[in-house]
Amino acid sequence: MEIIILLNIISVFVFSISASLSAINRKFDMFGIVLISFVTSVGGGTVRDILLGNFPIAWLNDLSYPVTIFFGTMASFLFTKKLNKFKRTYFWFDTIALSTTTIIGIHKGLDVGINPFISVTLGLISAVFGGIIRDTLCNEVPLVFRKGIYASACIFGGIIYVILYVLEVKEYISMPVTIGIIICIRYYSIKHKLNLPNYKNKLRGIKNV
Amino acid sequence: MEIIILLNIISVFVFSISASLSAINRKFDMFGIVLISFVTSVGGGTVRDILLGNFPIAWLNDLSYPVTIFFGTMASFLFTKKLNKFKRTYFWFDTIALSTTTIIGIHKGLDVGINPFISVTLGLISAVFGGIIRDTLCNEVPLVFRKGIYASACIFGGIIYVILYVLEVKEYISMPVTIGIIICIRYYSIKHKLNLPNYKNKLRGIKNV
Amino acid sequence: MEIIILLNIISVFVFSISASLSAINRKFDMFGIVLISFVTSVGGGTVRDILLGNFPIAWLNDLSYPVTIFFGTMASFLFTKKLNKFKRTYFWFDTIALSTTTIIGIHKGLDVGINPFISVTLGLISAVFGGIIRDTLCNEVPLVFRKGIYASACIFGGIIYVILYVLEVKEYISMPVTIGIIICIRYYSIKHKLNLPNYKNKLRGIKNV
Repeated sequence: MEIIILLNIISVFVFSISASLSAINRKFDMFGIVLISFVTSVGGGTVRDILLGNFPIAWLNDLSYPVTIFFGTMASFLFTKKLNKFKRTYFWFDTIALSTTTIIGIHKGLDVGINPFISVTLGLISAVFGGIIRDTLCNEVPLVFRKGIYASACIFGGIIYVILYVLEVKEYISMPVTIGIIICIRYYSIKHKLNLPNYKNKLRGIKNV
Repeated sequence: MEIIILLNIISVFVFSISASLSAINRKFDMFGIVLISFVTSVGGGTVRDILLGNFPIAWLNDLSYPVTIFFGTMASFLFTKKLNKFKRTYFWFDTIALSTTTIIGIHKGLDVGINPFISVTLGLISAVFGGIIRDTLCNEVPLVFRKGIYASACIFGGIIYVILYVLEVKEYISMPVTIGIIICIRYYSIKHKLNLPNYKNKLRGIKNV
Repeated sequence: MEIIILLNIISVFVFSISASLSAINRKFDMFGIVLISFVTSVGGGTVRDILLGNFPIAWLNDLSYPVTIFFGTMASFLFTKKLNKFKRTYFWFDTIALSTTTIIGIHKGLDVGINPFISVTLGLISAVFGGIIRDTLCNEVPLVFRKGIYASACIFGGIIYVILYVLEVKEYISMPVTIGIIICIRYYSIKHKLNLPNYKNKLRGIKNV
């Protein structure tokens, strides 16, 4: 599972960049930027591990988390303008981070015998709760409540993953398949500006605003 | 304690309806509605179980939670207008949900030897933290901070419950008594528009705004 | 470690006064004031103990917490005006509370073999998370994100403390030294209106707004 560890580090790095960029835009000071970066990067996994009862929480015993977050935050602080230009590259990293975190979360659930479909919830929590905590601390309604399509990509990918798991498909097949599905859904939804229906849309009988 | 399990399912159902109605009013998309509904329904109990150290959290191993929440959310989505008309019926369900959750929370504390009066705190946390998390995620000051009378009903009912517990009164007596007391306080306070005093009232020497 | 227990009670008391004063200013009712006071006073330590896996959380089995918070809240409610005058006295209490909580948090980490520098994070979490939860519940961006200098005082003091710990300096020396350093940084930064740099300042090449 070395690939999982590597992908995990990449997701922490990517999450810390996106979080610190958003803290910089809100004019937080150095401390606020580092804290938001830290909380966003480890928040989802921490909530998942608390629900499962895995103590002490992983990042307390693993220096690779703070070191990765430190470099992610430094990168955002030093290259703020350049990073804003690489939005396309960023999309790929972000999607890979989302998919990896989802798969890791599902695995942590399956490993302790949680029902596969509830494990998908754990994958989702790992993927989106960092961002929910970030937006709540920044005093905003979490983005994911209005742009749920990216969460749906994780849910759909996660369901495929647990189906493959139940069918005993090997991980070196099921993982890239899942990541591929999540990338496709996100790419397609961004290209066609798809959103999930909300109540207003339902009333009017249309699919998107 | 089958009655407790049944009442628990009813409270999860009621909480999920009230939460999803409030998410619908905020124009969240499908994902946001389901997530708010989930977090509100299980939030109070989850915080209580985390504080007590009961892991993994109950809803990870019990499909009745997600299923109940799913039906509650569907009900709100399909019958939004009708549900808004049944405010009187709703009051009864909501109060029963509050009382049950309070009693369950107190029991979980007493069972592991927590001081009876601190157990009341656990009952209160179970009852109100779901709503506090819901309001915080929706970027609002939790309603309970300004309309604390409904929390006070739980506290008062909870104190009566632990007194009856210490006096070794049987549960089939103490539970309906407690639920009855909470219903009376809520009903009376709504009918007479009672609120708890705040600092401004104290200064003016009056009881209610 | 009786001194630690005493200092801990003092910090809970001080945190509960500052929290209830800020709830009073927001016109919360009695229940809201007590709840904000409670959550702020025990919040930092609760988050720390959850991350470490110390269950049940300390205040569930120790009546000194609710009693202290009760008196702190009553004091704020009865002497609201007088307390606002004692800002200078208050600074000292608040700084002592911050330093003590930092040191207690670091100790809890070191005691279970957490890396000393990650233990500083635990100290910081203990010191600032109560306030972060308070501000989030009150629907504000946490003060510490813009006035991080007081968090930096804890971090700097904490680093000195773990260095002295690694050098096996006795606690009766390292504790007052750490508290002294935190007091000096806070006093100096308030006197000279120092803030941490934020991104805007960085761009302009100046140190303070």
